[in-house]
Amino acid sequence: MIKNSTPNEITTQVVQYLKEAKRNELQLLLDELHPYDIANLYEMLPDKHRNRFLSFLSIAQLADILQELDKEQQQNLLNKLDAKKAVHVMDEMDNDDLANLLEDISPENKINFLAKMKKEESQVVQDLMNYPPETAGRLMTNRYVWIPQHYTVKDVMVKLREYAEIAESINYLYVINEEKKLTGVLSYRDLILSEPNQQVKNIMYERVISVTVDTDQEHAAQIIQRYDFLAVPVVNHDHVLVGILTVDDMIDVLMKEATEDIEKLSASGKDIDFDTKAPVAAYRRLPWLILLLFIGLISGTIVSTFEETLEKVVALAFFMPMIAGMTGNTGTQSLAVVVRGLTTRDINKVVIAKIIFRELLVGIIIGVTCGILISVIAYIWQGSPILGLVVGSTLVVTLIIGTLAGTIIPLILHHFKIDPAVASGPLITTLNDILSLMIYFGIATIFISHLM
Amino acid sequence: MIKNSTPNEITTQVVQYLKEAKRNELQLLLDELHPYDIANLYEMLPDKHRNRFLSFLSIAQLADILQELDKEQQQNLLNKLDAKKAVHVMDEMDNDDLANLLEDISPENKINFLAKMKKEESQVVQDLMNYPPETAGRLMTNRYVWIPQHYTVKDVMVKLREYAEIAESINYLYVINEEKKLTGVLSYRDLILSEPNQQVKNIMYERVISVTVDTDQEHAAQIIQRYDFLAVPVVNHDHVLVGILTVDDMIDVLMKEATEDIEKLSASGKDIDFDTKAPVAAYRRLPWLILLLFIGLISGTIVSTFEETLEKVVALAFFMPMIAGMTGNTGTQSLAVVVRGLTTRDINKVVIAKIIFRELLVGIIIGVTCGILISVIAYIWQGSPILGLVVGSTLVVTLIIGTLAGTIIPLILHHFKIDPAVASGPLITTLNDILSLMIYFGIATIFISHLM
Repeated sequence: MIKNSTPNEITTQVVQYLKEAKRNELQLLLDELHPYDIANLYEMLPDKHRNRFLSFLSIAQLADILQELDKEQQQNLLNKLDAKKAVHVMDEMDNDDLANLLEDISPENKINFLAKMKKEESQVVQDLMNYPPETAGRLMTNRYVWIPQHYTVKDVMVKLREYAEIAESINYLYVINEEKKLTGVLSYRDLILSEPNQQVKNIMYERVISVTVDTDQEHAAQIIQRYDFLAVPVVNHDHVLVGILTVDDMIDVLMKEATEDIEKLSASGKDIDFDTKAPVAAYRRLPWLILLLFIGLISGTIVSTFEETLEKVVALAFFMPMIAGMTGNTGTQSLAVVVRGLTTRDINKVVIAKIIFRELLVGIIIGVTCGILISVIAYIWQGSPILGLVVGSTLVVTLIIGTLAGTIIPLILHHFKIDPAVASGPLITTLNDILSLMIYFGIATIFISHLM
Repeated sequence: MIKNSTPNEITTQVVQYLKEAKRNELQLLLDELHPYDIANLYEMLPDKHRNRFLSFLSIAQLADILQELDKEQQQNLLNKLDAKKAVHVMDEMDNDDLANLLEDISPENKINFLAKMKKEESQVVQDLMNYPPETAGRLMTNRYVWIPQHYTVKDVMVKLREYAEIAESINYLYVINEEKKLTGVLSYRDLILSEPNQQVKNIMYERVISVTVDTDQEHAAQIIQRYDFLAVPVVNHDHVLVGILTVDDMIDVLMKEATEDIEKLSASGKDIDFDTKAPVAAYRRLPWLILLLFIGLISGTIVSTFEETLEKVVALAFFMPMIAGMTGNTGTQSLAVVVRGLTTRDINKVVIAKIIFRELLVGIIIGVTCGILISVIAYIWQGSPILGLVVGSTLVVTLIIGTLAGTIIPLILHHFKIDPAVASGPLITTLNDILSLMIYFGIATIFISHLM
C-alpha cells in the first residue's frame, strides 16, 4: 500500500497513527521502510510527535535509525530516551557505529553508559576505541562469520544459518586455523557451487588480501575500491583475524576524504556544511583568512619597495591583477592534479620525476602561449612595445614558476608525510602572487628608462 | 607459496616461467592472484614478454584483466591479440565494461567487432550503448539473478546454483511478476533463514528501491551510498527489470564525480592525470587560462579608469593584492561548502534560504573582523588614519559581497541545471577581483582629498 507513497505522504500517515495511538498500524508501515527512510521520517516529524514516535519503536529499530543520524541528531535522540532504554539500544548497535557515537559523549556519560551495557558488548566497544581514529581497527565490525578450516561445506551451512541474522556481511566467509590466524577465504558463491562433504581447507582461496588493525582508513578503502571487494578482513600483528571492514563504511571513508581534499584545497575550514551555525563557520574560516591577510600584506610590501618604479609608470599597476591571478591559477591547476594523483595511485621516484618534468613542459607551453598573447594585447592597449615585452616576458617566467610551485610543494609535503592538500589553493595562489609581483617589478625596473 | 611474495618477486617468477615456456606453472601461480593483481603484473612486465604472457592466458583471464586496465592500455592489449581471439575475449567481458571499452574504438572497428561477436552478447552491448553516457542504463549489467514470484525457496536454490557462476552479484535476488515487472527483492540472508517450501511472494520485501534507465549515475550512486546497498535494480519506464548497478561500479562513479568537482573548482581542465602527455595537458588547461587572462585584463581596465586616483596616492596599489586576494578566497570558501552540499544532500527552498542567510552572517562576521584588523595595520604602516579607514571599510564590503557571490552563483547555476562546480574557484576569484577593485578605488576616490 505504501509502496508508491512519497516521503511527505508517509509522514502525514505516521502523524495520523501517532495521534490515534495506532501502534500496530505504525509497525506494519515501518516494516516496509529501510532504516535510512525511518531516520529521514524521524527528522521530518514535528518535534511534538517525536517522543511518542520513539516510544512506539522497538529497541532494534531505535538502534537502526540511530546509526543513520548525524552526531548532533544522535545526541538529541539519546537525550529523549530514558537511560535504561538508551543502554539497551546501545547493546543492539553495531559496535563500530557505537564506538563512533561514544567518541563525542562527555567522559562521565561514556563511562556511565559502558558500565551499564552488557559486559561483552561494552568490552568490544572499548577495545575498538583503543585504536587510533581513522585506522582499520577503529572502524572494523565483529559481526562477520569465521569458520575453522577443518569444517566441511555442510558444517559451514549450519553455522551460517545460525549467524546469518547477526552478521553484517555474509558475502565472504573467512577461514582460520587452530591459532585463529587467517588462512583463507570462501565466497558465498564458492559455497553453493561445492559438494556438501568437501573440506573448507581444500576449496578456500589462500592468497587472502587483508589489512592490519593500524592500516590507515583511506588505504583500506582503496583496497576495497581497487579489488571490487564487498569486505576486507582485519588482522592483528600476529595475523589473528579480529574483524572486517565492509564496503558501505569504506564508501563513507572515500567520500569523507574527497570532501576533505576539497575543503583543504579551497581552505574553507574543516567540517563546515549546510547545518553549521554562522558563528562556528566564521570561526573555522577566520584563521585561514587572517593568515592570508598577512601574506597579502607581504605582496603589498613588495609593491611598496618598487614605489618609485610604479610612480614613474602607473600603467604597470593595470597588469598587476592579471599577472598575479594567472600565476595563482596555473599553480592551483597543477596542485589539483598532484593532490588527486597522490590519493589515487602509488607513488615512487620515477613517477615523481615524470610528473615534475611533465609539468615543466606544460608550464613552458602555456607560459610562451600566454606570454606572446599578452605582449600583443599590452602593446595595442598602451601603445608601448617595451611595456608589451615586459608584461609578456614576466608572464612566461611566472607561469613556469607557478606551475612548478603547484607541483613541487605538494610533493615535498607528501614526502614529509604532511597531507599535501594543506598546501591549499589559496596558499599557493598567495605565494605565487608574491613571486610574480617580484618578477614583474624586477623586470620593469630593469627596463624603466625605456618605459617612461 | 606465493602467498607472501611481493609484486616484484612475482613478476620475476613470471618472467622466468615465460622464458622457460612453463605454461602450467604460470597458470598455477595466476590462479592465486586477483584480476587486479594480474593486470598490475601485466603492466609491470617488460614489453618483450607481454605477447607470450597473453598467449598463455585463458579467454576468461584476458577478459578479467582487460576490465582492470585503463582505456589506453586496453587498446594496446587488444592490438596485441589477433582479431578472432579479441572477439572471444569480448564475448566473455561484462557487458557494461565492454560498452565502455567500445566507446573509444574507431567506428569501423566497433562495427567489425560487434558483427563477429555472439549475437546475443553483441545485442546486449548495443542496447547498453543506446543509453546516454552517465545514466543507469549505460552502466548496468545483465549478470544478475531474477526469480519469478511464484517460485519456492527450493526452486530459487536450484536456479541460483545454476547462475552463481555467471552472476556478477548474488547478494540480492530480484523478484518479477508474469509481465517481468519488478515486484520485490530477497536477500541471500532471507533465503537461508527460510523454509524450503515457502513461496518467494510471501517472504520477499515489497518496497524495492529501484532506479530507471535514465537516472543520472551520480544519483544512483548516492542511493547505494545512503542505503548501504550492494546493488540497486534498474527498471525501464514500464517498471520492467532490465539490469542492476553494483556497488563496485558506483564507488568508481562517486570517486570520478569527486575528482571532477575538484578539477572544476580548480579549473584544472578535464581528465588530466599523471599519465596525460604534456601537450595534451597544456591544451586542456589553456582555454581556462586564456579566458582568465581576458578577465584579468578587465580588472586592469578598472584600475586604469582610476589612473588619476592611483597617480595621486600610489600607496593605494600596496593594498590591491591583499584586497583582491581576500575577496577571492572568501568566495572560494563559500563555493566549496555549497558545491559539496549540493552533491551530498537534497535541496529545497528552505535549505537555500537558510544557507544564503547563514553565509550573509558569516560574511558580516569575517568582514568586520578583518576590516578592523586591516584598518589598524594600514594606519600603523602608512601613518594615515584615512587610508586605514578606506582599506578597512573596503574589506568589510568586499568580504560580504565575496561570500554572497560564492554562495549565490553556484545556487543559481544549480537552479538552471548547470553543474555548479563550473562556477569554479578561479572564475569566482576573478569576478570578486573585479568587484573588489571597483569598490576599493570607488571608496578611495570619494576620500581622495583627505588621502593626499
